[in-house]
Amino acid sequence: MYSIGVDLGGTNIVVGLIDKEHKIVSKVVRPTKKERTSEAIVEEIAAMCKEIITINSLKKKDISYIGVGSPGICDSKEKVIRSSANLNFSNVNIEKEMKKYLDYEIYLSNDANCAAYGEFMEGAGKLVRSTVVITLGTGVGGGVITNGVILEGSTFSGGELGHMVINVDGRQCNCGRKGCMEAYCSATALAEIANEVAKINKNCLLNKLNDGDAKNTTAKMVFDAFDKGDKYIKVVVEDFYKNLAQSILNYINIFDPEVIIIGGGVSGRGDRLIEPVIKLIKLGMYGKEELKTKIKISELGNDAGLIGAGLLNN
Amino acid sequence: MYSIGVDLGGTNIVVGLIDKEHKIVSKVVRPTKKERTSEAIVEEIAAMCKEIITINSLKKKDISYIGVGSPGICDSKEKVIRSSANLNFSNVNIEKEMKKYLDYEIYLSNDANCAAYGEFMEGAGKLVRSTVVITLGTGVGGGVITNGVILEGSTFSGGELGHMVINVDGRQCNCGRKGCMEAYCSATALAEIANEVAKINKNCLLNKLNDGDAKNTTAKMVFDAFDKGDKYIKVVVEDFYKNLAQSILNYINIFDPEVIIIGGGVSGRGDRLIEPVIKLIKLGMYGKEELKTKIKISELGNDAGLIGAGLLNN
Repeated sequence: MYSIGVDLGGTNIVVGLIDKEHKIVSKVVRPTKKERTSEAIVEEIAAMCKEIITINSLKKKDISYIGVGSPGICDSKEKVIRSSANLNFSNVNIEKEMKKYLDYEIYLSNDANCAAYGEFMEGAGKLVRSTVVITLGTGVGGGVITNGVILEGSTFSGGELGHMVINVDGRQCNCGRKGCMEAYCSATALAEIANEVAKINKNCLLNKLNDGDAKNTTAKMVFDAFDKGDKYIKVVVEDFYKNLAQSILNYINIFDPEVIIIGGGVSGRGDRLIEPVIKLIKLGMYGKEELKTKIKISELGNDAGLIGAGLLNN
Repeated sequence: MYSIGVDLGGTNIVVGLIDKEHKIVSKVVRPTKKERTSEAIVEEIAAMCKEIITINSLKKKDISYIGVGSPGICDSKEKVIRSSANLNFSNVNIEKEMKKYLDYEIYLSNDANCAAYGEFMEGAGKLVRSTVVITLGTGVGGGVITNGVILEGSTFSGGELGHMVINVDGRQCNCGRKGCMEAYCSATALAEIANEVAKINKNCLLNKLNDGDAKNTTAKMVFDAFDKGDKYIKVVVEDFYKNLAQSILNYINIFDPEVIIIGGGVSGRGDRLIEPVIKLIKLGMYGKEELKTKIKISELGNDAGLIGAGLLNN
């Protein structure tokens, strides 16, 4: 028996066939062309599902269900994508729409929740009961699993972990508030803050690495300048570690999870990210308790959302 | 059928008889004398339970179980009070100890969790599935119920809602970190911050209200000075509202609960607290969404913990 996972993204739609060992055995990828109507996109998703069944020489009864991870507010009970920042989806009943093409049970959750659920089921959170997943990329996303259940919230808007203010009246965040974790701990924020420092310090190595154009700066370049010992960037990266450690400590105090998993582009830094951050976390434990929560790097990377979607009914 | 709730506090032990309508029908209160051994305190609790059965002319079989709310880290699975900041309880199996005197099933949870559960079952959170309770008192405590279940955490240390940093490198908190919600939003913090302002502004009304001694200052005095239009205290209280609103917004983004309930001494201010804070919360909603979470004042007050303990097996 198989299930199908759908990872609906702003750039690509990925459809994956998931086997009973919870592994991806086949994948189909097509551009989302997000300017299309939701009807056109759903039709494409259905066609991709049919395709993956065909190319794997499967029959209808070999697939138990289809799980969909979508950006935005996803009502998992009613199977309705309520809203979606980047796509033209507004109150789309994904089950009803899919049934026009394919007769399968549909499960739905938010893409960040699916990624968290994937890590929980088959990645760095395997064999635990509770995990918090934080993705440090363009923004800061997240998902929380407690007692094996995704924390979706009463209006399916929970788990917005990047929008916890860690500095009231701090740096402007895209969400409208000031001082969110995202405004300090996303890859975007790291590059922006480093650019601000490089601008007023002409000798800063970052000005070479980005070929003199701040628009070229990436989080990786910032870490490169740090690794090469640039004294200006040292302050920036150490501040980044501090803000990340304080944010994680907040989530330890709130959830006391078995594992916190760091994903997203920045997590590519691996142990060189985790180790200094763990050192700072240990200094701030409530009641001077020992750090029991494991801090880990995501294991599934970009596949987390697809696997999580394909396992939504597990 | 009845249950018995036990609210073990640093000052008093309260034992209550809870009827099948979830109401307290009888209460016994005795001083904790916290310097005593845990054995002596448990013996006292058991005696109080026997007393409440006797004075209500009940029989053993009329009581279905005893629920205990205790400060500190409470392992609800093993029924063990692991540690307790103010009491001499260290790895005390409360069920085993109680069974020496009384043969009932025992349920255990942390006192803040019991208070949250009480509000959830019979107070301002009745008829909802998820609620966050924040108590603004000497410190800032809290409890979270999601899908009808207390969020205890993997080591029973979750729900420390007051120890979310909202200002990295901010005001020193008792927990060792800097900038926790508790360092801004507790009654203690409000009085301290107001004292700092009053000290450098001799005309500040607070200097009269506290009879010229900062040690006398209470949160209520600060609000009194605010209500009387003192310009120095206006800034302090408006800052307090802002920090509280930002903290609540964080919890809305994280949990998306149906209700957030404010308890503790400061909640005595009622609508005069809630209304300005809701105004600020509405300005910071993620994605400019409408505020759907209800912000309410605790309904059970000091009885919340007792009722919650007495309903732990419901």
